Amino acid sequence: MSSRTATAAQSLTAITEEVGACAQQVAGADLSRLAQLLDRYERVFVLGAGRSGLALRMTAMRLMHLGLTVHVVGEVTTPAIGPQDILLTASGSGSTAAVVRAAETAVAAGAEVAAITTNPRSRLAELAGTVVVVPAAEKLDRSGAASSQYAGSLFEQTVMLIGDALFHALWLNSGASGDDLWPRHANLE
Amino acid sequence: MSSRTATAAQSLTAITEEVGACAQQVAGADLSRLAQLLDRYERVFVLGAGRSGLALRMTAMRLMHLGLTVHVVGEVTTPAIGPQDILLTASGSGSTAAVVRAAETAVAAGAEVAAITTNPRSRLAELAGTVVVVPAAEKLDRSGAASSQYAGSLFEQTVMLIGDALFHALWLNSGASGDDLWPRHANLE
Amino acid sequence: MSSRTATAAQSLTAITEEVGACAQQVAGADLSRLAQLLDRYERVFVLGAGRSGLALRMTAMRLMHLGLTVHVVGEVTTPAIGPQDILLTASGSGSTAAVVRAAETAVAAGAEVAAITTNPRSRLAELAGTVVVVPAAEKLDRSGAASSQYAGSLFEQTVMLIGDALFHALWLNSGASGDDLWPRHANLE
Amino acid sequence: MSSRTATAAQSLTAITEEVGACAQQVAGADLSRLAQLLDRYERVFVLGAGRSGLALRMTAMRLMHLGLTVHVVGEVTTPAIGPQDILLTASGSGSTAAVVRAAETAVAAGAEVAAITTNPRSRLAELAGTVVVVPAAEKLDRSGAASSQYAGSLFEQTVMLIGDALFHALWLNSGASGDDLWPRHANLE
Repeated sequence: MSSRTATAAQSLTAITEEVGACAQQVAGADLSRLAQLLDRYERVFVLGAGRSGLALRMTAMRLMHLGLTVHVVGEVTTPAIGPQDILLTASGSGSTAAVVRAAETAVAAGAEVAAITTNPRSRLAELAGTVVVVPAAEKLDRSGAASSQYAGSLFEQTVMLIGDALFHALWLNSGASGDDLWPRHANLE
Repeated sequence: MSSRTATAAQSLTAITEEVGACAQQVAGADLSRLAQLLDRYERVFVLGAGRSGLALRMTAMRLMHLGLTVHVVGEVTTPAIGPQDILLTASGSGSTAAVVRAAETAVAAGAEVAAITTNPRSRLAELAGTVVVVPAAEKLDRSGAASSQYAGSLFEQTVMLIGDALFHALWLNSGASGDDLWPRHANLE
Repeated sequence: MSSRTATAAQSLTAITEEVGACAQQVAGADLSRLAQLLDRYERVFVLGAGRSGLALRMTAMRLMHLGLTVHVVGEVTTPAIGPQDILLTASGSGSTAAVVRAAETAVAAGAEVAAITTNPRSRLAELAGTVVVVPAAEKLDRSGAASSQYAGSLFEQTVMLIGDALFHALWLNSGASGDDLWPRHANLE
Repeated sequence: MSSRTATAAQSLTAITEEVGACAQQVAGADLSRLAQLLDRYERVFVLGAGRSGLALRMTAMRLMHLGLTVHVVGEVTTPAIGPQDILLTASGSGSTAAVVRAAETAVAAGAEVAAITTNPRSRLAELAGTVVVVPAAEKLDRSGAASSQYAGSLFEQTVMLIGDALFHALWLNSGASGDDLWPRHANLE
């Protein structure tokens, strides 16, 4: 997208192509390892700042539909994390202060930590036992080199699709049908 | 994806292809009209249930970065909607009770209503002055005909990409640089 | 508070006296019955609109500290309610649409419903197996007869104190010390 | 409350007496100064962790009803804070990490900071231009000396009543009637 104007349709095409190309470069082995981890732990905690956090909330809801016990860090009913739990984080830069601190605490509490990030050499990636690298621009890179989109948009979109892919694989491999999951959907809204 | 098992990488590929194909079928004229509307109103209110609501929150954050006054329905500081405002909704079925009721109230209050939905004949679409139709399965269709994914996943993914496309086009057409938007990012987290 | 100006200190005194007088008129037998119910069910769901909902979130956090499984209706990880669960609601008028609908759904799903309200003849009170009546003005009564405060403020304050009283009694009667509860506090913030 | 069992009614009486006694010891001059500050700034940001944050959200909603522009730190539509803004915080200990960091950032951005805390010698109190001291136990004091209640409950209850007192005084002194405020209430829920 070289020009500086676009129709929304052109933008949608450009974004879809970017996210498709980005997703293809995510290492399948890392994704599989993360899927296995989510299945192994008693409870899954998710944490991301801003839009990354919203993407992980979308993942959290689906993992709950799958029957896992899931907590969003910061919600009022979220308990303490411990050795039986996994903390799934997402941070483009891998250096978001609140996410790094939570990962440090989780490691100290004996929990497993997984990270989705653009930066495999970041502090968050160091702390995480499992890292999924997304080859997108990080939020602070506004050069336009890695993406035509603003800030961390491509990263955040990819986090959302990765979360849905993790769910999708866990769901298929569980042998459960869609009808099996349906009764877990919130019925009070 | 005909088999009933998948690696997470296979799932990510399948999802990316689905969302790419779905996005291509969204009518460009409807997207452009919605982009123009968002630019015209003083305040934008967003509302969706569950994952659709999370996708619209991602949109809301970007529209705030663009300089619009944006409110998420249900947050404690969200005021009453009125004739100078637009309500942007997303509902796969177009019949989510809370969303339909809010749209009715918004219309009665003289506000503009826009809807992203799979169903152009739904109550929500009837209420909305502008409708963007997403050719995805709706949440209650678990036949697998329209998508290999669970429930409304394809719809929700597409809502997120549409929101980012609306932002992207508004941003490019505004002439603002990324550096111009950056100072609006929350600095207290 | 007959005059139409006040210092914040005068307002604090007036509010404290109002809430103290209001709390004294809540029937102890109803409170005890509600405390017993909360102890008996596997999972507690809480729901209120606006400030009533915020007050119940404060209660929800404490009940989690006590070891109960607690969900706030509307959060992304909240599952479906069922026969082993109790829905704790608060609505000044007892007719808040979203709360009444949720209570109807909960009853239909076989769940227990409890309500804190000013109106024992309201639809919400009809639906609830246990009702705690708060003799405060309801939100829509702006006559000033029942309270010098704005809208439902006195009700909402009393809901918060009732929630803390329920927790306090359950805690004392559990025999647990403060140190026993402490490890459940969220450690990732 | 010397015994280690209580009915919920006894707990409610004990709590109400505690909060009444605590509120009476809050310095009126500090409250008045804080009320004046809230009235003077263009935008009010509120931040507290856990239950203190919920109490401040209750305050935030009322300040919005009064016509102020209010943002809850952490919500998706909350922009950057700047020199025209005030950050209202609450922390029992005055050392909650996320709150202290936000206060440091706010000061660096030229914003005014106000703090409600039990500890006038805390880091948060140092950073704040205006401090309201609540003579309640802080959360980490589980000795029972300052309160029969668990952790920071008495502090959090008092924060909520202080917020409502600030609103009440601002409202009375504004000359607005309840009917004047009513149209600002959210109409989409």
